[in-house]
Amino acid sequence: MVTKHLVIFQPGDKKGYIEDGKTLLEAAQELGADIESVCGGKLTCGRCAVEVDDELSIKYGIAPKSQPLSPVTEKEMECLSRRGFSGKYRLACSARIYGDVVVYVPDASRRTKQIVRKSIRETAIPVRPATRKYYVELSPPTLDDPLSDSQRLITELKHLFGLGNLDIDYATLTTVADVLRSSHWKVTVTIWMGREIVKVEPGYVDRSYGLAIDIGTTTVAGYLCDLESGEVLATEASTNPQVTCGEDVMSRITYATTKPNGLATLNATIVDGISKLMADITRRVDLTPEDISEVVIVGNTAMHHLFLNLNAEYLARQPYVPTISRSLNIKGRELGMALNKSANIHILPVEAGFVGADNVAVLIAEEPYNQDEMMLIIDIGTNGELLLGNREKLVCASCAMGPALEGANIAFGRRAARGAIEHVAIDRKSLEVRFKVIGNDGWGITPSVKANGICGSGIIDAVAEMVKAGIIEPSGRFSPELTSRRLVNSNDSPAFVIARADETTLGQDITISISDIRAVQLAKAAMYAGAKILMGRLGITSLDRVVLAGAFGSHVSKEHALTIGLFPDCDLARVYSVGNAAGDGARIALINVDKRQEAEEMARKVEYVELAAEPDFQRHFIDALDFPHHQDSFPHLVSIPGDSAFPSATG
Amino acid sequence: MVTKHLVIFQPGDKKGYIEDGKTLLEAAQELGADIESVCGGKLTCGRCAVEVDDELSIKYGIAPKSQPLSPVTEKEMECLSRRGFSGKYRLACSARIYGDVVVYVPDASRRTKQIVRKSIRETAIPVRPATRKYYVELSPPTLDDPLSDSQRLITELKHLFGLGNLDIDYATLTTVADVLRSSHWKVTVTIWMGREIVKVEPGYVDRSYGLAIDIGTTTVAGYLCDLESGEVLATEASTNPQVTCGEDVMSRITYATTKPNGLATLNATIVDGISKLMADITRRVDLTPEDISEVVIVGNTAMHHLFLNLNAEYLARQPYVPTISRSLNIKGRELGMALNKSANIHILPVEAGFVGADNVAVLIAEEPYNQDEMMLIIDIGTNGELLLGNREKLVCASCAMGPALEGANIAFGRRAARGAIEHVAIDRKSLEVRFKVIGNDGWGITPSVKANGICGSGIIDAVAEMVKAGIIEPSGRFSPELTSRRLVNSNDSPAFVIARADETTLGQDITISISDIRAVQLAKAAMYAGAKILMGRLGITSLDRVVLAGAFGSHVSKEHALTIGLFPDCDLARVYSVGNAAGDGARIALINVDKRQEAEEMARKVEYVELAAEPDFQRHFIDALDFPHHQDSFPHLVSIPGDSAFPSATG
Repeated sequence: MVTKHLVIFQPGDKKGYIEDGKTLLEAAQELGADIESVCGGKLTCGRCAVEVDDELSIKYGIAPKSQPLSPVTEKEMECLSRRGFSGKYRLACSARIYGDVVVYVPDASRRTKQIVRKSIRETAIPVRPATRKYYVELSPPTLDDPLSDSQRLITELKHLFGLGNLDIDYATLTTVADVLRSSHWKVTVTIWMGREIVKVEPGYVDRSYGLAIDIGTTTVAGYLCDLESGEVLATEASTNPQVTCGEDVMSRITYATTKPNGLATLNATIVDGISKLMADITRRVDLTPEDISEVVIVGNTAMHHLFLNLNAEYLARQPYVPTISRSLNIKGRELGMALNKSANIHILPVEAGFVGADNVAVLIAEEPYNQDEMMLIIDIGTNGELLLGNREKLVCASCAMGPALEGANIAFGRRAARGAIEHVAIDRKSLEVRFKVIGNDGWGITPSVKANGICGSGIIDAVAEMVKAGIIEPSGRFSPELTSRRLVNSNDSPAFVIARADETTLGQDITISISDIRAVQLAKAAMYAGAKILMGRLGITSLDRVVLAGAFGSHVSKEHALTIGLFPDCDLARVYSVGNAAGDGARIALINVDKRQEAEEMARKVEYVELAAEPDFQRHFIDALDFPHHQDSFPHLVSIPGDSAFPSATG
Repeated sequence: MVTKHLVIFQPGDKKGYIEDGKTLLEAAQELGADIESVCGGKLTCGRCAVEVDDELSIKYGIAPKSQPLSPVTEKEMECLSRRGFSGKYRLACSARIYGDVVVYVPDASRRTKQIVRKSIRETAIPVRPATRKYYVELSPPTLDDPLSDSQRLITELKHLFGLGNLDIDYATLTTVADVLRSSHWKVTVTIWMGREIVKVEPGYVDRSYGLAIDIGTTTVAGYLCDLESGEVLATEASTNPQVTCGEDVMSRITYATTKPNGLATLNATIVDGISKLMADITRRVDLTPEDISEVVIVGNTAMHHLFLNLNAEYLARQPYVPTISRSLNIKGRELGMALNKSANIHILPVEAGFVGADNVAVLIAEEPYNQDEMMLIIDIGTNGELLLGNREKLVCASCAMGPALEGANIAFGRRAARGAIEHVAIDRKSLEVRFKVIGNDGWGITPSVKANGICGSGIIDAVAEMVKAGIIEPSGRFSPELTSRRLVNSNDSPAFVIARADETTLGQDITISISDIRAVQLAKAAMYAGAKILMGRLGITSLDRVVLAGAFGSHVSKEHALTIGLFPDCDLARVYSVGNAAGDGARIALINVDKRQEAEEMARKVEYVELAAEPDFQRHFIDALDFPHHQDSFPHLVSIPGDSAFPSATG
């Protein structure tokens, strides 16, 4: 009869009887305990270090044995100490079981690690990347054992790690014969989705890297991640180089469809831009693009199409249909990207013509589908995107806001960059103005940075403060009773001076004119009306949470946004700015492949509402032109503290 | 209760009760009868034409009804007559069932067609290509139905043809939006292996083309096939352009491994050569390479590696290991091939270092694994490849024969081309010689084509005739008793004149010298010894069939090959020349994907015997140096008719 011993793995309480002489790693595999092993028991990686704990044994009613495991070997000791382990630690692949034992698996030795995302609530995201590394030592071929190189590799990977039906990427295949021989048949193999060999490297390599990219119309943001720990190693933002072909989505699409080779030019421009970003971001941590084994890309539908070299013309024409909506896996080399030839590019799905992969990324970052509370997520840009729902149902829409809130279409508007007025406060009595300029630490002007314009958040602030100070009426008209030296005439229409000529680099006053206010009204009414249509679709009249996503969302004052009626009333304590949630979602999809599946399902679950086809849209839109609204009540607006005070100088 | 009618499909006798009002096509699908339909019932393709036959009805005991089917519509009539059908024919997609009926499905309307391969025996090969075409008419998107273009296509393909989980190739994806709109949403979709969209063409297209290619060291042969009928539309053979980098396999490998960019050069050379062949072969039938939707490639292991840009160095070094042995599917664009961007290239598996995909192709063409009889297949070249076995077991080997039988290493040897002596006869008494030159219709010399050398089959003929005429002894020595004015001294060693100077373009005699005979002995002994080792491995002492594959095999005289002892004794009526069986195998794998699976399984089932590692090889080799053999008996040699007569002038 075979002698067996009770083996218990903690945490997780996986236990059972294991044959005498088996290793702890074999026991863990048998009992389903989660232990990492890259080298498959070659005493190379040291990833399977576990603690054998007398106290735990006692707790589980097992009398601690003096020798429940085989003695530590010299090679094991060397490997453990190289990884910084000592004392009670053993390598699970080396320690053989000769008595009952309780084993503690520390966090670092678990295959399934987690990262914590801090947003509205803390979320633990298990690290399950698309690629995994495996170390193998092969016996060289002989006349009696003439298996082909790739079959030799595949057979050993199946034998050691139970990986069946492996394919090998063609670009990697061309490297195999030389790498195996130059490394004396000791190699680290990177496997994609458990089914395809995408890299064979000489010797033992234990780190693996991936890149998440959010292609914004204006900015491309990259996050370089360690695919083993899930940690972000570096971030990099650069201007989307396509801006030279048009500032906004529509002008890019026009460029693509009307210029000779327009699409090819825009495609090459963004591909080169991303390749450059990859070179920059990897250089900062002493890596190269060759080290990147997986990339996740998100972007609005137009950026998505231009990156994929797809004709974007039909996105801009009724009925605004994308070429493809579901997610894609494409080799980077097919897209002309300069990174590891076999690396996969995962592109998240899009929802509809104007609701892109960036919104899907926001969706999996915020997970409204896992909540009971009714959440409205808004992403403000030239197109505003709205997503409303909870675990029961999700609806989305896109509304044409115009570029006012991005600082365009506004006389002194400009993008959020050094010198732009980003915050404004107006004294209720004196109507005096203070403002904060990007590049200055606090409020007010310093000689070093004068104002050169006003950006989106500054415009919202200015308009909201003008409403609160009574400078403009709810209808958007300048108050006829108003007298102030800041009230001027600009091109025969009234305007209010935010910064005086001497506070600017322009040599003239920076003002908000009646036509600027009109532009803000059009933008916010479109967003508000969209929200109302979606609420009507779900049969609700109030919101539990509002999430402001995107760069604009993280700079805008929640109070002022509500003051002008950018979205329906909500408790301000439950309005959140989540920053680049699209980038977060891309990063989450990079480190956890289950979230890709979730993205695919949820993108299809979200019901797209075409606002242009809604008969009530015009009515809602006209009602929403007023500040904050023609008839809706805003009970949460009264409670805003410091209503009429200037912010403190450090504001 | 639903009314049902008895419906019987012939041939195949598929019958059952079908609901009143269903179409014949629906009935066929329900009952598993095999009817083609490309357009899915749009009355476009006319592929589903069937005969409704009163006589058959009577035969099956069904009283012929006057109206068992709905009346012929105008559109149906138009479609039928366009396809050349009339009278009793109906479109199965249009005719609805209102009574019991017997239906005859003509060959042309069956989805599964067959081609007949005539070789040793006739084999019917069902036509089951990797790609199929489907015609769809989509409803254009609207604001209420804004499905993406590719999802719209995929949804309709699933709806009409039951094709689930379709992917779309990236290169095809980039074309979809424009093709759908330019064709007013009526397109023909090509689907690969039932899972990937690889082409979207405007309108209705009903033919589909594929190409089978055998990359020989010397010649590249291409077969352009109609993938619907399985027929060969054109064949084309061109010189492998790599010959400028070396005539044989070993010199190519040396070039690849020692010249700067040697591998890349050889790879580009063959890829360009194949691209040119594709252009030539398609032009001959008014097509372009863009029309090719699938390619199958075979070749020896070195050609296989060089085509795939794999380092071939290790193929030539002990233990002669290939980089990959199993089959591959790679997009043509990845290999730089100039054809439809989404077309797949299927590369058949290889068996071992020197037993290539061409041998696997021979294997699936000859199917020894489906026979009880013990079959030896030999393919003669610089390397001879041997395959022996039956349904029980298969073994293979490769032997280094030297290039003698290809006409190299022979003083006057040359490749089989215009001017080469391909057949030789020697009168037993006068020792006079007649020969046949490639380019001449019969035996003897005409002024237009004089001899410029002697090719492989001519060399075998010459040596065999010299043996039979007693000019050389079984040991290979010239007979010491011999006197003839054709016996000369060439470079101080004896030689026999085959063609006199005035019969040649060379201005000198074409002779067979003692060193030429030695080269033949070495080559044939290697082949013979290999066969004996394989026979020993299977424990057999005689062969039921011998198959001579390859160009050499189709030109060599079976009798003469046996006379010199190229292979062990076998009834000459059961020795077959099958021509380019590798090309045939490639073509079979092109038109029937099941044969690819078979190739994969059989390539793994064949046991490779490394002759260099066999202790008995040297003994067998030395015994086999004699003509025909030192000790083996050749009972079938005595029965050869016309032993000493010259062939007739039309030979």
